[in-house]
Amino acid sequence: MKIYGDSISGNCLKVKWVADSLGFSYDWIETDVTKAESRTPAFLAMNPAGQVPTVILDDGRPLAQSNAIILHLAEGSNLIPKDAYQRAKMLEWMFGEQYSHEPYIAVARFQLAHLGKTLADLDPKVIPRGVAALQRMEDGLAGSSFLVGEALSLADVALVAYTRVAEEGGGFDLGAYPRIRAWIARVEQALKIAA
Amino acid sequence: MKIYGDSISGNCLKVKWVADSLGFSYDWIETDVTKAESRTPAFLAMNPAGQVPTVILDDGRPLAQSNAIILHLAEGSNLIPKDAYQRAKMLEWMFGEQYSHEPYIAVARFQLAHLGKTLADLDPKVIPRGVAALQRMEDGLAGSSFLVGEALSLADVALVAYTRVAEEGGGFDLGAYPRIRAWIARVEQALKIAA
Repeated sequence: MKIYGDSISGNCLKVKWVADSLGFSYDWIETDVTKAESRTPAFLAMNPAGQVPTVILDDGRPLAQSNAIILHLAEGSNLIPKDAYQRAKMLEWMFGEQYSHEPYIAVARFQLAHLGKTLADLDPKVIPRGVAALQRMEDGLAGSSFLVGEALSLADVALVAYTRVAEEGGGFDLGAYPRIRAWIARVEQALKIAA
Repeated sequence: MKIYGDSISGNCLKVKWVADSLGFSYDWIETDVTKAESRTPAFLAMNPAGQVPTVILDDGRPLAQSNAIILHLAEGSNLIPKDAYQRAKMLEWMFGEQYSHEPYIAVARFQLAHLGKTLADLDPKVIPRGVAALQRMEDGLAGSSFLVGEALSLADVALVAYTRVAEEGGGFDLGAYPRIRAWIARVEQALKIAA
Protein backbone atom coordinates (compact mmCIF):
# COMPACT_ATOMS: atom_id res chain seq x y z
CA MET A 1 0.00 0.00 0.00
CA LYS A 2 1.11 3.55 -0.73
CA ILE A 3 -0.08 6.40 1.46
CA TYR A 4 0.16 9.87 -0.06
CA GLY A 5 0.09 12.15 2.95
CA ASP A 6 1.31 15.40 4.41
CA SER A 7 2.82 14.90 7.86
CA ILE A 8 1.34 18.19 9.09
CA SER A 9 -2.19 16.92 8.34
CA GLY A 10 -4.17 15.17 11.05
CA ASN A 11 -6.34 13.60 8.35
CA CYS A 12 -3.21 11.92 6.96
CA LEU A 13 -1.89 10.90 10.36
CA LYS A 14 -5.16 9.05 11.07
CA VAL A 15 -4.29 6.70 8.21
CA LYS A 16 -0.71 6.25 9.39
CA TRP A 17 -1.80 5.50 12.97
CA VAL A 18 -4.39 2.91 11.92
CA ALA A 19 -1.96 1.25 9.50
CA ASP A 20 0.74 1.16 12.20
CA SER A 21 -1.67 -0.03 14.86
CA LEU A 22 -2.89 -2.92 12.69
CA GLY A 23 0.57 -3.86 11.39
CA PHE A 24 0.09 -2.95 7.74
CA SER A 25 3.22 -2.34 5.72
CA TYR A 26 3.15 0.70 3.45
CA ASP A 27 5.21 3.34 1.70
CA TRP A 28 4.55 6.87 2.91
CA ILE A 29 4.87 9.38 0.09
CA GLU A 30 5.23 12.82 1.64
CA THR A 31 2.95 15.22 -0.26
CA ASP A 32 3.24 18.89 0.67
CA VAL A 33 -0.15 20.54 0.37
CA THR A 34 1.31 24.00 0.95
CA LYS A 35 3.30 23.43 -2.27
CA ALA A 36 0.19 22.15 -4.13
CA GLU A 37 1.74 18.71 -4.52
CA SER A 38 -1.77 17.23 -4.29
CA ARG A 39 -2.86 19.33 -7.29
CA THR A 40 -0.46 18.01 -9.92
CA PRO A 41 -1.91 16.19 -12.94
CA ALA A 42 -0.40 12.91 -11.70
CA PHE A 43 -2.02 13.34 -8.28
CA LEU A 44 -5.39 14.39 -9.71
CA ALA A 45 -5.40 11.23 -11.81
CA MET A 46 -5.37 9.24 -8.55
CA ASN A 47 -7.78 11.52 -6.68
CA PRO A 48 -9.73 14.10 -8.69
CA ALA A 49 -10.52 15.94 -5.45
CA GLY A 50 -6.81 16.75 -5.06
CA GLN A 51 -6.82 15.94 -1.36
CA VAL A 52 -4.53 14.04 0.97
CA PRO A 53 -4.62 11.43 2.28
CA THR A 54 -4.98 9.26 -0.79
CA VAL A 55 -3.95 5.63 -0.65
CA ILE A 56 -3.13 3.19 -3.42
CA LEU A 57 -4.17 -0.23 -2.18
CA ASP A 58 -2.07 -3.32 -2.84
CA ASP A 59 -4.19 -4.15 -5.90
CA GLY A 60 -3.45 -0.69 -7.36
CA ARG A 61 -6.86 0.84 -6.74
CA PRO A 62 -7.05 4.31 -5.14
CA LEU A 63 -9.07 5.33 -2.10
CA ALA A 64 -9.54 8.80 -0.60
CA GLN A 65 -11.23 10.48 2.38
CA SER A 66 -9.40 9.82 5.64
CA ASN A 67 -12.37 8.33 7.46
CA ALA A 68 -13.34 6.09 4.54
CA ILE A 69 -9.75 4.85 4.36
CA ILE A 70 -9.47 3.99 8.03
CA LEU A 71 -12.88 2.27 7.99
CA HIS A 72 -11.63 0.14 5.09
CA LEU A 73 -8.26 -0.69 6.67
CA ALA A 74 -9.81 -1.53 10.04
CA GLU A 75 -12.62 -3.78 8.81
CA GLY A 76 -12.88 -6.79 11.08
CA SER A 77 -10.42 -5.37 13.62
CA ASN A 78 -11.05 -4.36 17.20
CA LEU A 79 -10.96 -0.68 16.16
CA ILE A 80 -14.59 -1.13 15.02
CA PRO A 81 -17.09 -2.15 17.69
CA LYS A 82 -18.91 -5.44 17.16
CA ASP A 83 -22.14 -4.02 18.59
CA ALA A 84 -24.33 -2.40 15.89
CA TYR A 85 -25.36 0.59 18.01
CA GLN A 86 -21.79 1.28 19.12
CA ARG A 87 -20.70 1.05 15.50
CA ALA A 88 -23.38 3.58 14.56
CA LYS A 89 -22.26 5.93 17.34
CA MET A 90 -18.68 5.60 16.09
CA LEU A 91 -19.87 6.68 12.63
CA GLU A 92 -21.89 9.53 14.19
CA TRP A 93 -18.67 10.89 15.73
CA MET A 94 -16.74 10.37 12.49
CA PHE A 95 -19.23 12.20 10.27
CA GLY A 96 -19.56 14.90 12.91
CA GLU A 97 -15.79 15.26 12.92
CA GLN A 98 -15.68 16.09 9.24
CA TYR A 99 -18.69 18.43 9.40
CA SER A 100 -18.50 20.23 12.76
CA HIS A 101 -14.95 19.78 14.08
CA GLU A 102 -12.33 19.61 11.32
CA PRO A 103 -13.60 22.72 9.44
CA TYR A 104 -12.98 24.80 12.58
CA ILE A 105 -10.31 23.09 14.72
CA ALA A 106 -8.12 21.98 11.83
CA VAL A 107 -8.72 25.04 9.68
CA ALA A 108 -7.79 27.47 12.48
CA ARG A 109 -4.60 25.53 13.11
CA PHE A 110 -3.68 25.32 9.41
CA GLN A 111 -4.26 29.04 8.90
CA LEU A 112 -2.25 30.09 11.97
CA ALA A 113 0.46 27.46 12.22
CA HIS A 114 1.06 26.75 8.54
CA LEU A 115 -0.12 29.74 6.50
CA GLY A 116 1.13 32.46 8.85
CA LYS A 117 -2.31 34.00 9.42
CA THR A 118 -3.52 35.52 12.69
CA LEU A 119 -6.76 35.02 14.62
CA ALA A 120 -8.03 38.29 13.16
CA ASP A 121 -7.76 36.81 9.66
CA LEU A 122 -10.11 33.91 10.43
CA ASP A 123 -13.77 33.76 9.52
CA PRO A 124 -15.40 34.90 12.80
CA LYS A 125 -17.43 31.65 12.97
CA VAL A 126 -14.33 29.45 13.19
CA ILE A 127 -13.37 29.84 16.84
CA PRO A 128 -16.88 29.74 18.39
CA ARG A 129 -17.84 26.69 16.34
CA GLY A 130 -14.59 24.97 17.27
CA VAL A 131 -15.25 25.74 20.92
CA ALA A 132 -18.71 24.18 20.55
CA ALA A 133 -17.17 21.06 19.00
CA LEU A 134 -14.72 20.72 21.90
CA GLN A 135 -17.51 21.17 24.43
CA ARG A 136 -19.53 18.37 22.80
CA MET A 137 -16.49 16.11 23.11
CA GLU A 138 -15.98 17.08 26.76
CA ASP A 139 -19.66 16.32 27.44
CA GLY A 140 -19.52 13.11 25.43
CA LEU A 141 -16.58 11.82 27.48
CA ALA A 142 -18.49 12.10 30.77
CA GLY A 143 -18.33 8.70 32.41
CA SER A 144 -16.46 6.90 29.65
CA SER A 145 -12.81 6.40 28.79
CA PHE A 146 -13.24 6.64 25.04
CA LEU A 147 -15.80 8.30 22.76
CA VAL A 148 -17.70 5.04 22.29
CA GLY A 149 -17.66 3.20 25.58
CA GLU A 150 -14.58 1.72 27.17
CA ALA A 151 -12.54 0.66 24.15
CA LEU A 152 -10.52 2.59 21.58
CA SER A 153 -12.34 2.87 18.24
CA LEU A 154 -11.93 4.75 14.98
CA ALA A 155 -14.01 7.55 16.53
CA ASP A 156 -11.08 8.28 18.86
CA VAL A 157 -8.58 8.11 16.01
CA ALA A 158 -10.65 10.51 13.90
CA LEU A 159 -11.22 13.02 16.69
CA VAL A 160 -7.82 12.97 18.34
CA ALA A 161 -5.98 13.90 15.15
CA TYR A 162 -6.78 17.60 15.31
CA THR A 163 -7.95 17.86 18.92
CA ARG A 164 -4.45 17.10 20.23
CA VAL A 165 -3.04 20.07 18.27
CA ALA A 166 -6.09 22.33 18.67
CA GLU A 167 -4.15 24.96 20.60
CA GLU A 168 -2.00 25.63 17.53
CA GLY A 169 -5.18 27.23 16.16
CA GLY A 170 -4.94 30.06 18.64
CA GLY A 171 -8.40 30.47 20.10
CA PHE A 172 -8.65 27.10 21.86
CA ASP A 173 -7.50 26.31 25.42
CA LEU A 174 -7.45 22.60 26.16
CA GLY A 175 -6.94 23.48 29.83
CA ALA A 176 -10.69 24.13 29.92
CA TYR A 177 -11.47 20.51 29.04
CA PRO A 178 -10.05 18.09 31.63
CA ARG A 179 -11.81 15.02 30.20
CA ILE A 180 -10.49 15.76 26.71
CA ARG A 181 -6.95 16.13 28.04
CA ALA A 182 -7.09 12.79 29.87
CA TRP A 183 -8.63 11.18 26.79
CA ILE A 184 -5.91 12.54 24.47
CA ALA A 185 -3.30 10.93 26.72
CA ARG A 186 -5.19 7.61 26.70
CA VAL A 187 -5.58 7.61 22.92
CA GLU A 188 -1.95 8.61 22.33
CA GLN A 189 -0.86 5.76 24.60
CA ALA A 190 -3.16 3.25 22.90
CA LEU A 191 -1.94 4.29 19.44
CA LYS A 192 1.69 4.64 20.60
CA ILE A 193 1.81 8.25 19.41
CA ALA A 194 4.53 10.40 20.95
CA ALA A 195 2.76 13.08 23.02
CA MET B 1 -38.53 4.54 15.43
CA LYS B 2 -38.99 8.30 15.61
CA ILE B 3 -37.36 10.55 13.04
CA TYR B 4 -36.99 14.20 14.02
CA GLY B 5 -36.56 15.95 10.71
CA ASP B 6 -37.22 19.11 8.76
CA SER B 7 -38.85 18.36 5.40
CA ILE B 8 -36.84 21.11 3.71
CA SER B 9 -33.57 19.37 4.70
CA GLY B 10 -31.95 16.93 2.30
CA ASN B 11 -30.05 15.43 5.23
CA CYS B 12 -33.40 14.55 6.82
CA LEU B 13 -34.93 13.26 3.60
CA LYS B 14 -32.02 10.81 3.23
CA VAL B 15 -33.24 9.09 6.38
CA LYS B 16 -36.87 9.09 5.23
CA TRP B 17 -35.98 7.63 1.83
CA VAL B 18 -33.85 4.83 3.29
CA ALA B 19 -36.49 4.01 5.89
CA ASP B 20 -39.22 3.97 3.22
CA SER B 21 -37.08 1.98 0.78
CA LEU B 22 -36.34 -0.69 3.37
CA GLY B 23 -39.89 -0.82 4.75
CA PHE B 24 -39.20 0.53 8.24
CA SER B 25 -42.17 1.97 10.10
CA TYR B 26 -41.55 5.24 11.89
CA ASP B 27 -43.09 8.43 13.20
CA TRP B 28 -41.85 11.58 11.48
CA ILE B 29 -41.71 14.50 13.88
CA GLU B 30 -41.49 17.69 11.83
CA THR B 31 -38.80 19.90 13.39
CA ASP B 32 -38.48 23.39 11.92
CA VAL B 33 -34.84 24.46 12.02
CA THR B 34 -35.70 28.00 10.90
CA LYS B 35 -37.73 28.28 14.14
CA ALA B 36 -34.84 26.78 16.19
CA GLU B 37 -36.96 23.75 17.08
CA SER B 38 -33.75 21.67 17.12
CA ARG B 39 -32.29 23.96 19.79
CA THR B 40 -34.86 23.50 22.56
CA PRO B 41 -33.70 21.92 25.84
CA ALA B 42 -35.75 18.80 25.08
CA PHE B 43 -34.14 18.43 21.66
CA LEU B 44 -30.62 19.09 22.96
CA ALA B 45 -31.14 16.33 25.53
CA MET B 46 -31.53 13.91 22.58
CA ASN B 47 -28.80 15.41 20.42
CA PRO B 48 -26.40 17.90 22.05
CA ALA B 49 -25.35 19.08 18.58
CA GLY B 50 -28.86 20.44 18.03
CA GLN B 51 -29.05 19.08 14.50
CA VAL B 52 -31.66 17.28 12.43
CA PRO B 53 -32.02 14.52 11.53
CA THR B 54 -32.01 12.82 14.91
CA VAL B 55 -33.65 9.45 15.30
CA ILE B 56 -34.83 7.62 18.39
CA LEU B 57 -34.42 3.94 17.68
CA ASP B 58 -37.02 1.39 18.76
CA ASP B 59 -35.02 0.68 21.94
CA GLY B 60 -35.14 4.39 22.87
CA ARG B 61 -31.54 5.20 22.04
CA PRO B 62 -30.76 8.30 19.95
CA LEU B 63 -28.65 8.49 16.83
CA ALA B 64 -27.60 11.56 14.84
CA GLN B 65 -25.70 12.47 11.65
CA SER B 66 -27.65 11.63 8.51
CA ASN B 67 -25.01 9.40 6.97
CA ALA B 68 -24.39 7.49 10.22
CA ILE B 69 -28.15 6.93 10.54
CA ILE B 70 -28.61 5.58 7.02
CA LEU B 71 -25.55 3.33 7.37
CA HIS B 72 -27.11 1.91 10.54
CA LEU B 73 -30.59 1.44 9.05
CA ALA B 74 -29.24 -0.15 5.87
CA GLU B 75 -26.84 -2.64 7.47
CA GLY B 76 -27.15 -5.95 5.69
CA SER B 77 -29.36 -4.53 2.92
CA ASN B 78 -28.60 -4.18 -0.77
CA LEU B 79 -28.05 -0.43 -0.29
CA ILE B 80 -24.54 -1.33 0.95
CA PRO B 81 -22.28 -3.17 -1.52
CA LYS B 82 -21.06 -6.60 -0.45
CA ASP B 83 -17.64 -5.99 -2.04
CA ALA B 84 -15.17 -4.38 0.40
CA TYR B 85 -13.67 -1.96 -2.11
CA GLN B 86 -17.07 -0.84 -3.37
CA ARG B 87 -18.15 -0.34 0.23
CA ALA B 88 -15.06 1.82 0.81
CA LYS B 89 -15.80 3.87 -2.31
CA MET B 90 -19.36 4.35 -1.06
CA LEU B 91 -17.97 5.73 2.20
CA GLU B 92 -15.51 7.92 0.28
CA TRP B 93 -18.46 9.56 -1.51
CA MET B 94 -20.42 9.87 1.76
CA PHE B 95 -17.62 11.56 3.71
CA GLY B 96 -16.86 13.74 0.69
CA GLU B 97 -20.52 14.74 0.57
CA GLN B 98 -20.43 16.12 4.10
CA TYR B 99 -17.07 17.86 3.63
CA SER B 100 -16.98 19.14 0.04
CA HIS B 101 -20.58 19.12 -1.26
CA GLU B 102 -23.17 19.80 1.47
CA PRO B 103 -21.35 22.89 2.86
CA TYR B 104 -21.64 24.55 -0.56
CA ILE B 105 -24.60 23.03 -2.45
CA ALA B 106 -26.90 22.77 0.57
CA VAL B 107 -25.75 25.97 2.23
CA ALA B 108 -26.30 28.08 -0.92
CA ARG B 109 -29.78 26.63 -1.30
CA PHE B 110 -30.69 27.14 2.38
CA GLN B 111 -29.47 30.74 2.33
CA LEU B 112 -31.29 31.64 -0.89
CA ALA B 113 -34.43 29.51 -0.77
CA HIS B 114 -35.11 29.50 2.97
CA LEU B 115 -33.40 32.51 4.54
CA GLY B 116 -34.19 35.00 1.79
CA LYS B 117 -30.56 35.84 1.05
CA THR B 118 -29.14 36.60 -2.40
CA LEU B 119 -26.06 35.27 -4.20
CA ALA B 120 -24.22 38.47 -3.23
CA ASP B 121 -24.69 37.59 0.46
CA LEU B 122 -22.89 34.24 0.15
CA ASP B 123 -19.29 33.61 1.13
CA PRO B 124 -17.53 33.94 -2.26
CA LYS B 125 -16.10 30.41 -1.90
CA VAL B 126 -19.54 28.76 -1.82
CA ILE B 127 -20.46 28.75 -5.52
CA PRO B 128 -17.04 27.82 -7.00
CA ARG B 129 -16.59 25.00 -4.49
CA GLY B 130 -20.11 23.75 -5.17
CA VAL B 131 -19.37 23.83 -8.90
CA ALA B 132 -16.21 21.78 -8.26
CA ALA B 133 -18.25 19.23 -6.28
CA LEU B 134 -20.75 18.88 -9.13
CA GLN B 135 -17.95 18.47 -11.67
CA ARG B 136 -16.44 15.64 -9.60
CA MET B 137 -19.82 13.92 -9.61
CA GLU B 138 -20.19 14.40 -13.37
CA ASP B 139 -16.71 12.92 -13.88
CA GLY B 140 -17.38 10.12 -11.40
CA LEU B 141 -20.52 9.07 -13.28
CA ALA B 142 -18.62 8.53 -16.57
CA GLY B 143 -19.39 4.99 -17.67
CA SER B 144 -21.50 3.98 -14.70
CA SER B 145 -25.16 4.23 -13.82
CA PHE B 146 -24.65 4.96 -10.13
CA LEU B 147 -21.82 6.49 -8.10
CA VAL B 148 -20.50 3.06 -7.11
CA GLY B 149 -20.89 0.80 -10.10
CA GLU B 150 -24.21 -0.39 -11.49
CA ALA B 151 -26.36 -0.59 -8.37
CA LEU B 152 -28.00 2.00 -6.15
CA SER B 153 -26.11 2.47 -2.87
CA LEU B 154 -26.15 4.86 0.07
CA ALA B 155 -23.65 7.00 -1.85
CA ASP B 156 -26.42 7.86 -4.30
CA VAL B 157 -28.88 8.54 -1.49
CA ALA B 158 -26.41 10.84 0.27
CA LEU B 159 -25.45 12.78 -2.86
CA VAL B 160 -28.84 13.06 -4.53
CA ALA B 161 -30.43 14.76 -1.53
CA TYR B 162 -29.02 18.21 -2.24
CA THR B 163 -27.88 17.72 -5.83
CA ARG B 164 -31.47 17.36 -7.07
CA VAL B 165 -32.32 20.80 -5.59
CA ALA B 166 -28.93 22.42 -6.28
CA GLU B 167 -30.42 25.02 -8.62
CA GLU B 168 -32.38 26.50 -5.70
CA GLY B 169 -28.96 27.72 -4.55
CA GLY B 170 -28.76 30.16 -7.42
CA GLY B 171 -25.29 29.73 -8.88
CA PHE B 172 -25.64 26.15 -10.13
CA ASP B 173 -26.95 25.04 -13.52
CA LEU B 174 -27.66 21.32 -13.72
CA GLY B 175 -28.05 21.73 -17.47
CA ALA B 176 -24.26 21.70 -17.63
CA TYR B 177 -24.09 18.16 -16.19
CA PRO B 178 -25.93 15.66 -18.40
CA ARG B 179 -24.70 12.60 -16.50
CA ILE B 180 -25.83 14.08 -13.20
CA ARG B 181 -29.29 14.83 -14.60
CA ALA B 182 -29.73 11.29 -15.91
CA TRP B 183 -28.44 9.90 -12.61
CA ILE B 184 -30.87 12.04 -10.57
CA ALA B 185 -33.74 10.58 -12.58
CA ARG B 186 -32.45 7.03 -12.03
CA VAL B 187 -32.02 7.55 -8.28
CA GLU B 188 -35.41 9.24 -7.89
CA GLN B 189 -37.01 6.31 -9.71
CA ALA B 190 -35.13 3.73 -7.64
CA LEU B 191 -36.12 5.47 -4.39
CA LYS B 192 -39.66 6.24 -5.64
CA ILE B 193 -39.14 9.97 -5.00
CA ALA B 194 -41.45 12.29 -6.92
CA ALA B 195 -39.29 14.30 -9.33
